Amino acid sequence: MKKIFTITASLLLCLSAFAQQALFGGAGIKSPEINPDNTVTFRFAAPKAIKVQITGDFLPTTKMETKYGTFDVPVVADMKQDDKGVWEYTSDTLAPELYMYSFIVDEIKVKDPSNVYMIRDVNSVTNVFIVSKEKGDRGYLYGVNEVPHGMVSRVWYDSPSLKMKRRMTVYTPPGYEDNARHKYPVLYLLHGMGGDEEAWISLGRASQILDNLIAEGKAEPMIVVMPNGNVDEEAAAGEKPGGFAQPSMQHEGMMDGTFERSFPDIVKYVENHYRVIAKKSSRAICGLSMGGFHSLHISSYYPDMFDYVGLFSAAIMPNESPGADTSAVYKNLDEKLKVQFSKKPKLYWIGIGNADFLYKANADYRKKLDSTGYKYTYFETGEGHLWKNWRIYLSKFVPSLFK
Amino acid sequence: MKKIFTITASLLLCLSAFAQQALFGGAGIKSPEINPDNTVTFRFAAPKAIKVQITGDFLPTTKMETKYGTFDVPVVADMKQDDKGVWEYTSDTLAPELYMYSFIVDEIKVKDPSNVYMIRDVNSVTNVFIVSKEKGDRGYLYGVNEVPHGMVSRVWYDSPSLKMKRRMTVYTPPGYEDNARHKYPVLYLLHGMGGDEEAWISLGRASQILDNLIAEGKAEPMIVVMPNGNVDEEAAAGEKPGGFAQPSMQHEGMMDGTFERSFPDIVKYVENHYRVIAKKSSRAICGLSMGGFHSLHISSYYPDMFDYVGLFSAAIMPNESPGADTSAVYKNLDEKLKVQFSKKPKLYWIGIGNADFLYKANADYRKKLDSTGYKYTYFETGEGHLWKNWRIYLSKFVPSLFK
Repeated sequence: MKKIFTITASLLLCLSAFAQQALFGGAGIKSPEINPDNTVTFRFAAPKAIKVQITGDFLPTTKMETKYGTFDVPVVADMKQDDKGVWEYTSDTLAPELYMYSFIVDEIKVKDPSNVYMIRDVNSVTNVFIVSKEKGDRGYLYGVNEVPHGMVSRVWYDSPSLKMKRRMTVYTPPGYEDNARHKYPVLYLLHGMGGDEEAWISLGRASQILDNLIAEGKAEPMIVVMPNGNVDEEAAAGEKPGGFAQPSMQHEGMMDGTFERSFPDIVKYVENHYRVIAKKSSRAICGLSMGGFHSLHISSYYPDMFDYVGLFSAAIMPNESPGADTSAVYKNLDEKLKVQFSKKPKLYWIGIGNADFLYKANADYRKKLDSTGYKYTYFETGEGHLWKNWRIYLSKFVPSLFK
Repeated sequence: MKKIFTITASLLLCLSAFAQQALFGGAGIKSPEINPDNTVTFRFAAPKAIKVQITGDFLPTTKMETKYGTFDVPVVADMKQDDKGVWEYTSDTLAPELYMYSFIVDEIKVKDPSNVYMIRDVNSVTNVFIVSKEKGDRGYLYGVNEVPHGMVSRVWYDSPSLKMKRRMTVYTPPGYEDNARHKYPVLYLLHGMGGDEEAWISLGRASQILDNLIAEGKAEPMIVVMPNGNVDEEAAAGEKPGGFAQPSMQHEGMMDGTFERSFPDIVKYVENHYRVIAKKSSRAICGLSMGGFHSLHISSYYPDMFDYVGLFSAAIMPNESPGADTSAVYKNLDEKLKVQFSKKPKLYWIGIGNADFLYKANADYRKKLDSTGYKYTYFETGEGHLWKNWRIYLSKFVPSLFK
């Protein structure tokens, strides 16, 4: 019997059509291999290639000039070919983190055929790996561990304001399904420009971060709602009618007040369909970049809705947008903040990297808050406008909620 | 304001680090482009490449000799380079279908950097696209259309038999969330060897097929439960502790009776946590390959559980497995079938491709059923042991359920 199944497995391998065809690319190669000392070895089989390189956010950075300015980008490192045609590169010891990388084969960027783990960021897909050293570190927090797991659902909710059924991702904490009476607080977690309802659950590792923080007793069990902030679409690319279109950075109605005004549709759906504590003190909202902008304006436009507000590298912008909904959502922000802060939110949290292109806008906003005596918590990291920072901010923000 | 956001978007594009670095690979290229006549154009920017080719299951096949036998595999077609360094290939007019393809650049298989849509099959990831001609065709059935959508959840259920919390994918039909009294029938949908609880929802397009069939009035609204049939793991690769390990074709305890015996854990969880009709006439089970084997044995070992059974390219095997659980699950299959068929199941459905390496085993099994007068429905397609066939079988099987 064992023999039969070994043969069957081989057949099935062959039969998975061209996917397994005898071309160079992955067969029997282990890549990336995370070594016991947390160096990482990458391998790529390409006997006939002239030059194979690797780049990734585990490498040191260099300055890249663009027409938009100068940016820090990872260097490109040369890989070495062995006598079997396999190219190899071993990194330095890496700190706990989720990293992204690509190979460059004779100047063409390719994915690692030995690594099925990839994450989409808007319209590009990149291989990832996680390094962890010990329980509780960043890599541990972003990984799946031997802890109870929450349930993750893709839910279609009704948005009467937008006249659409729309898709969102909902995390319910471990125990939710078996605890028919307990009611939970809710965190609304918003993506940035080009993102969608998949961004926080994939790039953001939201369900892993929540599972792990809850298991360590560092976070209250909570429901996390990840809506789609692009009011011109029902759902993420590929999950809405129109086929497998390329995801776009630009959307109609971005940051014109429409999403902010329609937000109660989401809260209403959640509070009608989940066992939640439907009170200001049990509602939090936060988001990255455009989602920080949304969080700022939703929480000030609806000052009785959220007691916890988190701005992660928030796109804080002038609010005199011609054609935008200045009459309602963005108009008189100072007045709105006055009302919001007079109600003493339990937490107003601002996080940003010191190399972020929005650093100055955030510093100016903090000055405004300082000048009026509004209380907030500030958390500054290195680096810029990156998912690396947003995962850190989520990990820092969540333990402060609903205490 | 519009200008500010255009600049911001550009900045964000730049800032998504090396993902957007100015290397060849995808920028501004549309690929694949599905033309109005359902030919498909593929493009790949590689100014310095010597030869760029494409292979995929939309191409004609050729015979490939392997040590396991001769297989039909798609041919490799040459692409043509234009004066800007972009390689292009346009297919013939394609029939409605979900297709998979890869580029081969100077003998290295690479993914299409302009196409974020990829599906994992065990341990390889391949680009996909869908061709549809009209409503109701195969491409339409596998796509997201303007119809109500069900909810898809990743659920952790308790399996006392396996002493694990295990992950499964659950589809609840449109309306389930808003219809607090209605009870639904349940289809248990099982994957094959190397698969997991993600296989049917990704490769199998199960939620799209169900949404579309339900919207057309061709299928009863039903819950679809997609468990993980590998008893040595809690969840799919990457979703279980142990990091981002390569998914494996082989698992401990495959087809040794353990999964079949433990199946009531799943049914019990579903019936305790969802609004279901907990009756034989409202339970169906089906699966592909190993999942067909599982469906055969679960339904015969528990003859009062399922009124609908579907075997899709089932791995029908001799049941005298030394070391396997012959004492219970597989032993005396003929006796078990006698009991099962004496209870007149409403549907016993067998589907297989005429080029499947399991064709003979299935023909022999049908002979056995014929010789005893047991009623079943048989559906034969062309081609072999392929997801293409399993999506067709699901689309054919589901409309027959719970009528």
